[in-house]
Formats: sequence, structure tokens, C-alpha cells
Amino acid sequence: MKPILSLNAFDPQQTDALDPHIKGEALRRQRLFGAASVLFYREPLEIARGEGCWLMDVRGERYLDCYNNVPSVGHGHPRVAEAVYQQLKRVNTHTRYLHSLVNDYAERLLATFPASLSNITFTCTGSESNDLALRQAFSFTGRRGVIVTEGAYHGNSDLVTAVSPSSFRRGQPPRWVKTIPAPDPLHVPATQQAEVFDSAVAAAIQALEQEGFGVAALLFDSIFSSDGVYADPAGFIAPAVERVRRHGGLFICDEVQPGFGRTGRMWGFERHGVIPDLVTLGKPMGNGFPLAGVVTRPAILERFCQEVGYFNTFGGSPAAAAAGMAVLDALEQEQLIQRAQQSGDYLRVAITRLQASHGGIGAVRGVGLFTGVELLDEAGQPDESLATAVINGLRDEKVLIGAAGPHANVLKVRPPLCFGTVEADFFVQALAKSLQRLGR
Amino acid sequence: MKPILSLNAFDPQQTDALDPHIKGEALRRQRLFGAASVLFYREPLEIARGEGCWLMDVRGERYLDCYNNVPSVGHGHPRVAEAVYQQLKRVNTHTRYLHSLVNDYAERLLATFPASLSNITFTCTGSESNDLALRQAFSFTGRRGVIVTEGAYHGNSDLVTAVSPSSFRRGQPPRWVKTIPAPDPLHVPATQQAEVFDSAVAAAIQALEQEGFGVAALLFDSIFSSDGVYADPAGFIAPAVERVRRHGGLFICDEVQPGFGRTGRMWGFERHGVIPDLVTLGKPMGNGFPLAGVVTRPAILERFCQEVGYFNTFGGSPAAAAAGMAVLDALEQEQLIQRAQQSGDYLRVAITRLQASHGGIGAVRGVGLFTGVELLDEAGQPDESLATAVINGLRDEKVLIGAAGPHANVLKVRPPLCFGTVEADFFVQALAKSLQRLGR
Repeated sequence: MKPILSLNAFDPQQTDALDPHIKGEALRRQRLFGAASVLFYREPLEIARGEGCWLMDVRGERYLDCYNNVPSVGHGHPRVAEAVYQQLKRVNTHTRYLHSLVNDYAERLLATFPASLSNITFTCTGSESNDLALRQAFSFTGRRGVIVTEGAYHGNSDLVTAVSPSSFRRGQPPRWVKTIPAPDPLHVPATQQAEVFDSAVAAAIQALEQEGFGVAALLFDSIFSSDGVYADPAGFIAPAVERVRRHGGLFICDEVQPGFGRTGRMWGFERHGVIPDLVTLGKPMGNGFPLAGVVTRPAILERFCQEVGYFNTFGGSPAAAAAGMAVLDALEQEQLIQRAQQSGDYLRVAITRLQASHGGIGAVRGVGLFTGVELLDEAGQPDESLATAVINGLRDEKVLIGAAGPHANVLKVRPPLCFGTVEADFFVQALAKSLQRLGR
Repeated sequence: MKPILSLNAFDPQQTDALDPHIKGEALRRQRLFGAASVLFYREPLEIARGEGCWLMDVRGERYLDCYNNVPSVGHGHPRVAEAVYQQLKRVNTHTRYLHSLVNDYAERLLATFPASLSNITFTCTGSESNDLALRQAFSFTGRRGVIVTEGAYHGNSDLVTAVSPSSFRRGQPPRWVKTIPAPDPLHVPATQQAEVFDSAVAAAIQALEQEGFGVAALLFDSIFSSDGVYADPAGFIAPAVERVRRHGGLFICDEVQPGFGRTGRMWGFERHGVIPDLVTLGKPMGNGFPLAGVVTRPAILERFCQEVGYFNTFGGSPAAAAAGMAVLDALEQEQLIQRAQQSGDYLRVAITRLQASHGGIGAVRGVGLFTGVELLDEAGQPDESLATAVINGLRDEKVLIGAAGPHANVLKVRPPLCFGTVEADFFVQALAKSLQRLGR
């Protein structure tokens, strides 16, 4: 049985070449998890401990984590661990009983949204959130069509996989899903991004209307993470969002990746000056405790609840709320949103400087602590093999990172938000060394 | 805006009648959670603390919890809280790195299954598990039809809601879903349950084949919880399962409710002498930490992974594995599976004895710590209003409980597994008082 390879995945055919301990664990894992067992890196990593932006493997090697956006306020954050612990010891039930902490958390979280977005439904994962948001859009609009970007990933449920073109290994999304290209700063000037994006959405709406689906939702993540990280220019998404609304559709803003401060603002959509109809939350929300949610206008939620009973057993339990509250505390008290903005700007300037001394870096983009580094070959084309080599080279330099984009050539630099200038320097030096070793 | 009422739900129209503090929290909750805010009981409960089978509200009142199957090894279990805490402090990442604890947990859990069920995919919720299991059945069989019971509830995703007839407030399941009646011990003798169940499945298969869907899966929970709790006779499901296989379909056994020892065995299907093709896990798996999974034959998982990449960010993280491991430890060391069997038998005998002194109790059934008490009116018909009155009466007697079944007249007694004879006596006395106060 041969597991299927993904981006930057370990190839199980190479298991024999691993060090005996790692080989044993990798084999055990293949036996237990079968075809769904995907590991990162040419040589998989066995993690023992984490602190802040750093992960330690079982041999005691320290790695700078520039990949993981779930432990967003830092690995092993003591405040989150303590909050979850105290609540798990006290009580942790579902939410058909009242629990003031759950109310307190919902209230504090909703206060960070525009006033129209005043209801939240807690779930456990970003996938559950996008599944629920899409269904709310279907019931509210009475339509079925959904517009997503070509490289989108929104989660793993049956419905959400249908709107995640990047998940398909065979076949393609159903006909009610229309894809649009992600922004393309390499070929489209910044001043034209809004128009080009809007035109693509217009064409998708037309196709959906012609085929009788109509447009229920435009769904994208405000940093276009799996498409290759696109943030600029601020506001370029606004005309397309307005167009969808004129055609009776809703805008679902997937904040699972950009949300909770990563972009240097609480929510990625703020920077674009639009107010979504539905916002989906996930990954960093509980710093690793499975906590997610859908924020929406009351009328949208109400319409959905008339059709179907929705209850999420673990969603927004007291322990989940404790984790979420501790994350908000950490964001505030450690000023992580400001830090994300400052460290991100510093990082992108430093990477950009490398362009003078090293080849391969075609573009450096992003906002806050979400940075994309486009690697190109000497002909200026996306270079996936260079990206793979750099990712594994960075692993050798003790830096963990991933790739994104349709050509898997965009380094995705997405560290915990406690990342500072020391870490940025460490990353840039490691990147320089990796490129150098590759003759670039 | 008026939230929609569910079984045993608090009616928000009655908010003004509540005590001022509870009223304040209930109003806040309605404002924050909108139409999806469903609370239990005529007078909602605000929970502050839990221990073993007991929950304490904010006024310091103690309630015997006979309802919650998530904190299955007991509320606030110190071993689970401690295990999660230690792991959250240490590190909690996704599973694309190796982590020996995750392997250890998967290995220990899979050892409790028949040898053919040798792969597990971790998810966060039972809904995610059933969603994934159905898609594995679709891809493996190349068919679409699913057979479920009329009162089934399997979760809340788009796909899983389609196979959960009990969730529909409007409309009905799609055509590729065929429903069969749950077992009916009131009208069908035990010796005929297997044949009647098999015949219903045969008719559903025929309909699915005639309509061109074919049968991908027979999906039910081995205790038929939302249908009204049916356990007997052991083995009655076997002919139907075999029939589905002869027609090329798979048997997905939903162990989200009966699993992890509740039936007095580790898995509910064991008692019926069948080996499922896929088993879905959830609720008690992490004692409240969101942990769930799909156990399957490797070939089924492999086929699915050829079509689509599946990854669950929070699923089976080290903290989740720590919670799961602590639950297995508690089950073993506190001998909770044996306890479930013994306490359950004791409880059912004691409830049955009430039939001599009180009216309304039509049948007492179940296995282990999953008991259904069928409440009937004087004409021997299902009595929903009696069930609602008893549930609220039991709340006054400091016992928490719910109802199930198409007529919502079956008391669902489903306490944490640390429930013993002291708790059983407390429950039975409270039930007697409630019936008496209702003149039964």
C-alpha cells in the first residue's frame, strides 16, 4: 500500500534510509494510519517539546517554527495550558446548559467584529465552520453556486472539499463551484488587481446564473494562503464582494488562517474595508485546543435554523472557551498583533535584501506574519524543485517552513505571533545559506 | 427573532419568568448565539462544577447527571485534566510530524478492534468521523445509497445531516437516503427482530438499486440511541449487515454513543457478533476534549486517499492523544466497563420494579449504562407530555436526563460510567417521586 504524496511530504519508499528510531516510528505510523499518513520532510521530524516560536525534536535539536499558525500565541503557552487545565478540572459540558464563561468569551470575541456580525456559532474545526457557513448561505439565498479561487483550501468535510480545488487528486469540483484565479502580482499591476479580480468574479457569476445555480456565496480567505499568499493592494477585493451582493449572493470570509491578529489587525478583512456576511474562524482560535466558529448576521443564522437543527457537542464548551479567552488575553497582554505587524515588516525587508545577493527570490509579499516568498527559476518561472530543496535545506538549518500556490513554489512563512526580530534574522540567515548551498 | 424549539428545550418566550441572574445569562446567550441558542429545561441550568456523576450549579445545588455521555469517565476527571495539561505545556502540534504518544495511542486503541480494522484516521468530532466514513464508503463501493433508521442522528455536517432524519425541521433527506424503522420491541417479538430488521433493509436496498443509487452503506449506531435505545436481542443486526454486503455495500457502525465501554463491552457491535467495515468514534473518546476518529480496513481508506487529500489539523494532536490515553487508562484502572455492565443491570431491575407501584412505565430496556424507559399513557400509547413532565420533574429532584425516540417519550438514561448503585438508587427514588407527583 502506497500513501499518496502531498506537498513537501515524506516519501514512504525512503523509509529504509532513515535513522533506526525515526524509521521505527515512521513504520509504526504507516501501519496505524495507512494511506492517510502524510509526514513532512525528506526526513520526518519527531517533536518532543515547544516553547514560543521554537520546537525541539527528540534528539534535543531546536528548530525555529516558521510554519505553524495554530499555536499562534506560542507553543506550549502556559496561560492557555493553565486555563484549559483549570476548566477541565472544574467542569466541561456541552452548551445546552448556561455557562457564564462561554457567554463572556462569545461577548468578548463578537466585540471585535463590525456590529452587523453579532451572532456566533461555535464549532470545533475550521472545516466545520466553513461547512456551516456554506449551508447558511445556501438557505439564506435559496441558491447553490459558490465561487472560490483555483488553489483554495477551506477544509476537509464532504461539502467543504467540494469548494477546495487544491484537495482533488482525481476529478474536479462539482458544477455549482466556479473557480477564479488568485491575484497575480507578477503579471497584473497593483492598480488593476481590483478590476481583474472583479472581472473574474463577474464571469463566474454569469456562468453560475446561466447554469441555473445562481450565486450563493463568494468564499475566500482574505490572505489567499493556499493560492500563494496575496494581500495587496488593500481593498482590492471590495468591488467583487459588492458585485456578488448585487447578484443576491453573500461573502463568506474565511479567517481560519488570517484571523486572530496574524495580518497585524484582528481580522484580515478589516484591511480591505469590507464587512463580510459570514466569517469563519478556526486554527489559532484555541492555540491548539479544537475551537472554531461562524460569525454571522442574525437573520442568516435564523433562516438556517428554520430548516435544520444544529448542535455541536464539543463546540464552545467551557474548556474551549477558556482556551479561547486565554488566547485573547495573550494577544492583548503580549501585544502580539502589533508585534505581528512589526516583525512581519522587518522580515519582508530582510528577505527582500537577500534578492541582491542571491538568485531565486522572485517576489516577497504578505502582511503581518504571513509572508510569501516566490521562488523562480532562471527563466523567471515558478520553481517547485527549488522550493522543495529550500524547504528541506531550511530544515537542515533548523527552520521549519512550508510551500503554497498552484506551483508549490511559494515559501509560506507563517510563524507563531511571538516571532520577533531575533527570529526573523535567524530565518533570513538560514534562507541565505540554503540558497547558497543550492548555488543560488 | 424566535429560536426554534427542540426536545426538552427552554422556551425563550418564558425568559421573563426566570430568576434574575439566570434570566440575565439566558438573555445574553440569546443575543450572542441567536437562533442556534438552545437550552435545556423549563428553567435552564447554569453549571459551575462537576465531579464524577455529579454536576453543581452556580447556587451550589448538586445534580445527579444521568444524561451526559461525553465526560464518560466522570466530570472533571483529574487524570484526563492532568494529561491534557502536561501535553499542552509540552507541545501540541498537528500530525505531520511524528509524535510517539500519538502512535502509542493509535496502537492501543486499534488493539481493541478486530484485526481487519487496522487503520485509524483521527478527527475532532463524531460528525467529522461520520462525514469521512460515508465518503470512504462512497469511493470504495462506487455507489451512493445510504440506509439509516427513521430517527437517526449521526452529526451536523452537510453530508451527515442528510443521513440524520431527526435533524430535519423542513423537508426530508435526499433520495439516496432510505430510512428503515428502528426495532420495535413493543410490537415485534424478540425472536422476530432480526427478520423484521433484515426485511426493512432488503426493501431499502431494492429501492436504492431501482433508483440507480445502489447501496454504499448501512449506517446505524449499535444502540439506536436517538431512535429510542434498542439493544436486544444480541445479534439481531447480523442478517441485515450480511445482506448489505451481498449487495456490495459496507456497514458503518456509529459507535459515537455506544462506544468506549458504555454497553458493558468496549464496542457495541461486539455484542451483535458482527465486524463492521468502518467504525466511527466520538463523544466519550477524550472525555470532553474534542477527539474522534474513523477506524477502517486499509483498502477502504487507501481507495479514498487516491481521490482526495484528507488532513485534519487538530485531529489526533498530542494533547488529544493524551486525553484519549487517559480515558483508556481510567476505563481500565477504574474497571468502568464492568461497572457499566453491573450498574446498568442493577438500574434496569430497579426501574422495572417501579412498574408495580407506578403507572406510565411501558418498557425498560438497554444494555450497560444506556437505558431507555418508555413512557406510555393510559391507553398504552407513547406519552411525550408525560416524558417532558418527568424530565422537568427529575430536574426538580436534582436528576438530569433527556428523552429520545420519534415520540420523544423514551427517557434516555446515559450517565457517566462511574455511576454506581448509590446513584442508581438516587435516580430511581427521584423517578418514583416525579411519577407520583404527576399522579402516576
